[in-house]
Amino acid sequence: MLTIEQIEELAQPSSSRIILLVIDGLGGLPRPETGKTELETARTPNLDLLAKEGICGLIDPVSTGVTPGSGPGHLALFGYDPLRFTIGRGILEALGVDFPLHDGDVAARGNFCTIDESGIVTDRRAGRISTEKCAELCQRMVGIKIKGAEILVSPVKEHRCVVVFRRENLCPALSDSDPQKIGLAPRSVEALSPEAEETAQLANEFLSEAGNILKSEHPANMVLLRGFSQHPHLPPMSEIYKLNPAAIATYPMYRGLARLAGMEILESGPSLSDELDTLSLHYHGTVPYDFFFIHVKATDSAGEDGDFNRKVSVIEEVDSHIPRLMELSPDVVMVTGDHSTPAMLKAHSWHPVPFLLRSQWCRPDSVTDFSESSCARGSMGRFPGVDIMPLAMANALKLSKFGA
Amino acid sequence: MLTIEQIEELAQPSSSRIILLVIDGLGGLPRPETGKTELETARTPNLDLLAKEGICGLIDPVSTGVTPGSGPGHLALFGYDPLRFTIGRGILEALGVDFPLHDGDVAARGNFCTIDESGIVTDRRAGRISTEKCAELCQRMVGIKIKGAEILVSPVKEHRCVVVFRRENLCPALSDSDPQKIGLAPRSVEALSPEAEETAQLANEFLSEAGNILKSEHPANMVLLRGFSQHPHLPPMSEIYKLNPAAIATYPMYRGLARLAGMEILESGPSLSDELDTLSLHYHGTVPYDFFFIHVKATDSAGEDGDFNRKVSVIEEVDSHIPRLMELSPDVVMVTGDHSTPAMLKAHSWHPVPFLLRSQWCRPDSVTDFSESSCARGSMGRFPGVDIMPLAMANALKLSKFGA
Repeated sequence: MLTIEQIEELAQPSSSRIILLVIDGLGGLPRPETGKTELETARTPNLDLLAKEGICGLIDPVSTGVTPGSGPGHLALFGYDPLRFTIGRGILEALGVDFPLHDGDVAARGNFCTIDESGIVTDRRAGRISTEKCAELCQRMVGIKIKGAEILVSPVKEHRCVVVFRRENLCPALSDSDPQKIGLAPRSVEALSPEAEETAQLANEFLSEAGNILKSEHPANMVLLRGFSQHPHLPPMSEIYKLNPAAIATYPMYRGLARLAGMEILESGPSLSDELDTLSLHYHGTVPYDFFFIHVKATDSAGEDGDFNRKVSVIEEVDSHIPRLMELSPDVVMVTGDHSTPAMLKAHSWHPVPFLLRSQWCRPDSVTDFSESSCARGSMGRFPGVDIMPLAMANALKLSKFGA
Repeated sequence: MLTIEQIEELAQPSSSRIILLVIDGLGGLPRPETGKTELETARTPNLDLLAKEGICGLIDPVSTGVTPGSGPGHLALFGYDPLRFTIGRGILEALGVDFPLHDGDVAARGNFCTIDESGIVTDRRAGRISTEKCAELCQRMVGIKIKGAEILVSPVKEHRCVVVFRRENLCPALSDSDPQKIGLAPRSVEALSPEAEETAQLANEFLSEAGNILKSEHPANMVLLRGFSQHPHLPPMSEIYKLNPAAIATYPMYRGLARLAGMEILESGPSLSDELDTLSLHYHGTVPYDFFFIHVKATDSAGEDGDFNRKVSVIEEVDSHIPRLMELSPDVVMVTGDHSTPAMLKAHSWHPVPFLLRSQWCRPDSVTDFSESSCARGSMGRFPGVDIMPLAMANALKLSKFGA
C-alpha cells in the first residue's frame, strides 16, 4: 500500500475525469426468506452493466472485521489511511452541523443528560429530548466566556450538541467528562498532556457554569462532554493527486468530510435527481473539476432503521440515475459504499463493501452483476478501501511509473 | 507479509530446485474486436497444463494501481519489497549497459540535449541522436579528472548515457541538473545533505567541462544529469533464502538486477532456445544451483511497440519451450511477469500480472488455463509480488515452521 506521500510523487495532472459514487452503507446481509441481500434483491440493470464492463471486488474501508464510522469510511475512500488520519468525535460532530470551525478551535461532542440530587447520572440522553428543546438549551448558553475564551454551543439532534472552545493556544488532549454509563457522576476533565492544563480548567469551568444554567431544567439538567479534538489538517487532494476535486452531498457531515480532503462543495438540492443535475452542470462547467464525489445517504438511513425494503428501493432509485451519470462519459467511474449497513443489523457493520470501477483501461473481469456475492468473485478480490484512489488514478492515466 | 529478515530465520537449504520464468510485461489488455488479451489470444497448451496442475493468481508487483518500472518489478519477484529497496535511475542505467561499477561509485543517467545561445534547453533529447554519435560524444569525455575523481561516461542508446563519478567518500544525495522540460536552463546540481557538498561541486565542474567539450556540437551541445545514486547493496538471496541462485537473461539490465540480488549470471546465447540450453546445461551441472531465474524480454518489447500479434507470437514461442523446461522435473516452477505491458497502451501498466506456481505440494485450484481472467479466479487471488518467493520456498519445502 502506497502512502499518500508516495502517491504524490507519481501523480500527474491530466484532463481525464473521475466520478466516485458513494452509496452510504451499501453492503448488506441476506434476508433469511430469500438468501439475498438488499443489493441482490434490488433490480439494478444499470449498475449490473457497469459491473459487466468494469472490474469488481470487495473493500475493507478500515481493516478486516472492523466496523467503520462514517469519518474513517470516507477518509479511506478519499485515499487517507484511516488508521493514520483520525478525526476526533468533536470535530466530526461539528462537521455534521456545518459548524464554521476556526483554526485552533477545540470541539467536543455534548450529550444533555439527567443527574439526580447527589450528582449521579441517571440518563445519559436526558430521555432523548426533542431537537427543539436541545436548540433552546443551547441558546441559553450563548455568550458564555471563560478565561478569555469564547464558548459556542450548537444543537445537533435530540440530546446531542457540539461544544466549541475558541481561544489561542488551546490543546485538545483532554479526557472525557462523560462517564459512559449511568450510576456514576460526571468526571472532571483531565489534561492528558501538560499543554492541556489550561484547556482542562476551561472545560471544567464551562461544565460548572452549564450545570448552573441547567439546574432547574428537567430532564436535561446537565451536559456531558467527550471527544475533545481539533481540525486534523489533512493534506488536500489537490496536492496528493493533483486533482481539482468537487463534492456533491446533501448531508452536512459528508460535505464536512469532503472539505477536510480539500474538495470544493457544490451547491445541490436534496434529491438524488438534484445531485445529478448539479453533477451535469459542473461536469462541463467553467471550473475544470476532474474528480466528483457524489454521496447518497438514504441507503444508510434505511439500513439503520432496519428497513430492508426501503433500502432496496433506494438502491433501485440510484440505479435508475446511472444512465444520466454515464451520459457524461466519465473516464473513470467508481461505485461503492463507505461501509455496510445491513438492515438485519440496523447498524453499520464490518462486512466488506461491494466495489466496481469502470474505465476504458480496466481489463474487465467475469462479473456480470453488482452484488456482494458477485463482487467476491471479482478480479480485485477483497482489498483495502484506501487503494481505490490509486486504482482510479491509474485508470485515469494520471499516475506515472514507479522507478525505472 | 514477512520481511526478508523474517524469511531468513525460516529458510533452510535443501536439494530441491526452483525455476522462476519471468515473461517480461506478460499482462495485457483485451483487443476490443475479440475481448481477449494477448495471453488469452495465444495458444498455450503447455502453460495451460501447468496452470491446471498448479495454483494461479494475479500479482501486484508494487501496489494497487502502481505501474512498476523494470527495477521495482524484478526486485519484487526476487522477494525484495520495492518500496523498501529502491534502485536509483543512475544505477539502473549502469546495470543496463553492464557497466562495471565499483563500490562507492556514484552513477547518473545522462541525456545529451540541445541548448540555445542563452543556455536554455530546447530539446531534452538532442533530436534523439544515433547511438553511434552518442558513443562518439562519450568517447570525447574519456580521461576527465576533477578534484582527484575519475569520471566515466558510457553510451546507452540514442541520446542516453551513464555518467559515473569514482572517488572515495562520494555521496549521491544530489538534485538533478535535468530541468525535466524545455524552455528552462539546466539546473546546477545541489547537495541534498551536507555530506554531498563536494560531490555536488564535482558534478557541477564536470557539467561545465562537458559543456566546453560539446559546445561546437549540434544538436547535442550539452548533457543533463539525473538520478544520482549508489549501489543499493541488497542482502543476497544466498543469505536470505540459503539458495544458490543463477540467472539466465539476454539483456544487460536484467543480468544487472539479478546480480544485485546476488545471483550468478550464466552465459547464454540470445534466443529463448539458447536460454533453455543454458538452463539444461546448468540444471544438472557441477555447481549445485537450486534457483534459476530465466528472463524473456521480447514480450515486453512487443507490448511497448503496440504490436499485439507479435506479443501473442512470443508467448506462443515461450509456451513451446515449456516441455523442455518440465523435462528437468523442477520441484517448483513459477511463471509470471514483472509487470503488464498491454499492446493497447504501448507501455508498462498497473494491471496485476498472471501468476502460476506448480509443485508436488501446491494444492491445485480449479483454474485450467493460463490467462488474466482465469488467474483472477485462482486460489491465490490478487496478492503482492514479494510474496511469490516465500511461496516458492514453502513449496520447495525450504521454509521451517514459524513459532512452535
